[in-house]
Amino acid sequence: MSPSQAGAGTETPDGPLTIAQLAALAGVSTATVSKVVNGRSDVSAATRDQIEELIRTRGYRRQRRPAKSAALIDVLFHELRSSYVMEILNGIREVARAHRIGVVVSELAGRRVPGGDWIEDVLARRPLGVVSVYAGLAPDQCDRLYSRDVPLVQLDPTGDPEHDAPSVGAGNWSGGLSAARHLAALGHRRIGVVSGPENMEAARARLDGFRSALDLAGVEADPGLVRPGDFSIETGRVHALDLLRLDEPPTAVFACNDSSAVGVYHAAAQLGVRIPEDLSVVGFDDLPMAKWMIPPLTTVRQPLKEMGAAAARMIVRLAEGGALPQQRVELATELVVRDSTAPPRGR
Amino acid sequence: MSPSQAGAGTETPDGPLTIAQLAALAGVSTATVSKVVNGRSDVSAATRDQIEELIRTRGYRRQRRPAKSAALIDVLFHELRSSYVMEILNGIREVARAHRIGVVVSELAGRRVPGGDWIEDVLARRPLGVVSVYAGLAPDQCDRLYSRDVPLVQLDPTGDPEHDAPSVGAGNWSGGLSAARHLAALGHRRIGVVSGPENMEAARARLDGFRSALDLAGVEADPGLVRPGDFSIETGRVHALDLLRLDEPPTAVFACNDSSAVGVYHAAAQLGVRIPEDLSVVGFDDLPMAKWMIPPLTTVRQPLKEMGAAAARMIVRLAEGGALPQQRVELATELVVRDSTAPPRGR
Repeated sequence: MSPSQAGAGTETPDGPLTIAQLAALAGVSTATVSKVVNGRSDVSAATRDQIEELIRTRGYRRQRRPAKSAALIDVLFHELRSSYVMEILNGIREVARAHRIGVVVSELAGRRVPGGDWIEDVLARRPLGVVSVYAGLAPDQCDRLYSRDVPLVQLDPTGDPEHDAPSVGAGNWSGGLSAARHLAALGHRRIGVVSGPENMEAARARLDGFRSALDLAGVEADPGLVRPGDFSIETGRVHALDLLRLDEPPTAVFACNDSSAVGVYHAAAQLGVRIPEDLSVVGFDDLPMAKWMIPPLTTVRQPLKEMGAAAARMIVRLAEGGALPQQRVELATELVVRDSTAPPRGR
Repeated sequence: MSPSQAGAGTETPDGPLTIAQLAALAGVSTATVSKVVNGRSDVSAATRDQIEELIRTRGYRRQRRPAKSAALIDVLFHELRSSYVMEILNGIREVARAHRIGVVVSELAGRRVPGGDWIEDVLARRPLGVVSVYAGLAPDQCDRLYSRDVPLVQLDPTGDPEHDAPSVGAGNWSGGLSAARHLAALGHRRIGVVSGPENMEAARARLDGFRSALDLAGVEADPGLVRPGDFSIETGRVHALDLLRLDEPPTAVFACNDSSAVGVYHAAAQLGVRIPEDLSVVGFDDLPMAKWMIPPLTTVRQPLKEMGAAAARMIVRLAEGGALPQQRVELATELVVRDSTAPPRGR
């Protein structure tokens, strides 16, 4: 009996139910059932309870996937730039290689959400799942994935509405905390910040952790030293030039990603400010280039490769019909002290 | 009538012939016919003439590809590292996006040629074609692609035997030439070189062009100043340390890619050698980071994104059954002069 024949509840056979059968029994759409089995929260409590009761009593059977040898995972990036993308892709590839899954790569290409072609092409490819990396989908695009039973996992979610999909990230708050503690322990009291995009929760968490640590250390944070960045080298450079030209410039700068730290290095070189003698710099990411900067960059390491691997493993598990042990996987960050930080002059 | 029914020559219908029909008529394997229609040279002249005569008189019809919305290109990289990969991938994606083709990414993962799983999975996916980027295939893997009529295009070919596939590269020889001319014109006479991998023709061409320009400029090239690199930062650093510690160190270094130039910068910083005052450095690639090095790197730009796009366009054309106007596409390089080069001290 095919799922489409599963009309009235009593006609379904024994054994686990497909999404179509669950939808027919509960009198709701397949998209709604899919939201429940994929762990999304935007379903009414009553409907959720009803469907979960059905799954408890009858069991749930995910639809079959294509033959393993042609299986795909679709990965959507914001843009194909910087080693951030490369590291995550390496982690996804590692899991995909072990499972013989092809990895299809696309990017927003300047859009805020992917275009209509993207979702059509994904649905035509029927991948095991979609990983979106610092890239939001439109709500109807999420719904179309769910209604076709294509799981979505977000890595470094943006602030868009589909937010309740399972996600992977790093300990950004703790990372910001460790950066500030390190600088405070060296004796810095005036610390500039080049922050990240406001719509990215990872960037907000870094800044919050940073402020908390200063607060705990009894260092008064000057709001005028916090500049809104966008993770690019260029804004790092512009903000650092501005900070270093203040009458009372900061003795240290926390750049909320390694790329903006490169910009800070440039501003310092332009003004003849030496790192770390005149200015300490802490980055965030620990991209491969960080240890090759001159001087090598002190930075908060986030395990990007492991994050990519975790997202891919979540897709594999969901595609096999398994449940996720947790909807949010957060991997630890770690401060890596190199040569760009030192006590402020005069100490 | 299906291709497999095309037994004896006279039974074939009018109109263009498929590979299977051509093979049956010529009494050769489908792999051999595929080699001819895909422009490979490893077929005897007699067989080639026979097949080309058949195509001339009857026409050739490439097998149908999967529905456009699920079409794929497979891209094989040496490893997923450095912006070299990212730039090429951006170019491939640009063409793929316009044609609504999915891009599947894999890598050698430390192997010399891809593993058996890779070719099985590619054949199961039935892509429009394969682009191999600085990554060789085993001869039998090439043959399996050709026998299934999956075209292969090489970008920056390695010295492996499948060399006669259509390929894309940059004007590496001219690029090496322009680097040496620039340094000679500044007055440099003792110039060190960190070269690239010997099995990569692009690396050899850069070195040959460099030597020719020195020869033309009447500068005697000291073979002891040429060090064998592998395009990594670390070998750039080690070789530059060695060169700079010579009794008579070079006043300039040509690093055959930007990554090894990063290593040269490190060696100089470690020894207190200033760039460009004490040492001029020229790189090759013009990766996005080159202009952000301190000082910004003078380098030979190769248009990596355009090279990726050219390779993807060749696949699209071959998949549509078209012929390539040329088997080898070579895009121009250009010297980009920034702040890492200056006349040697004392001039």
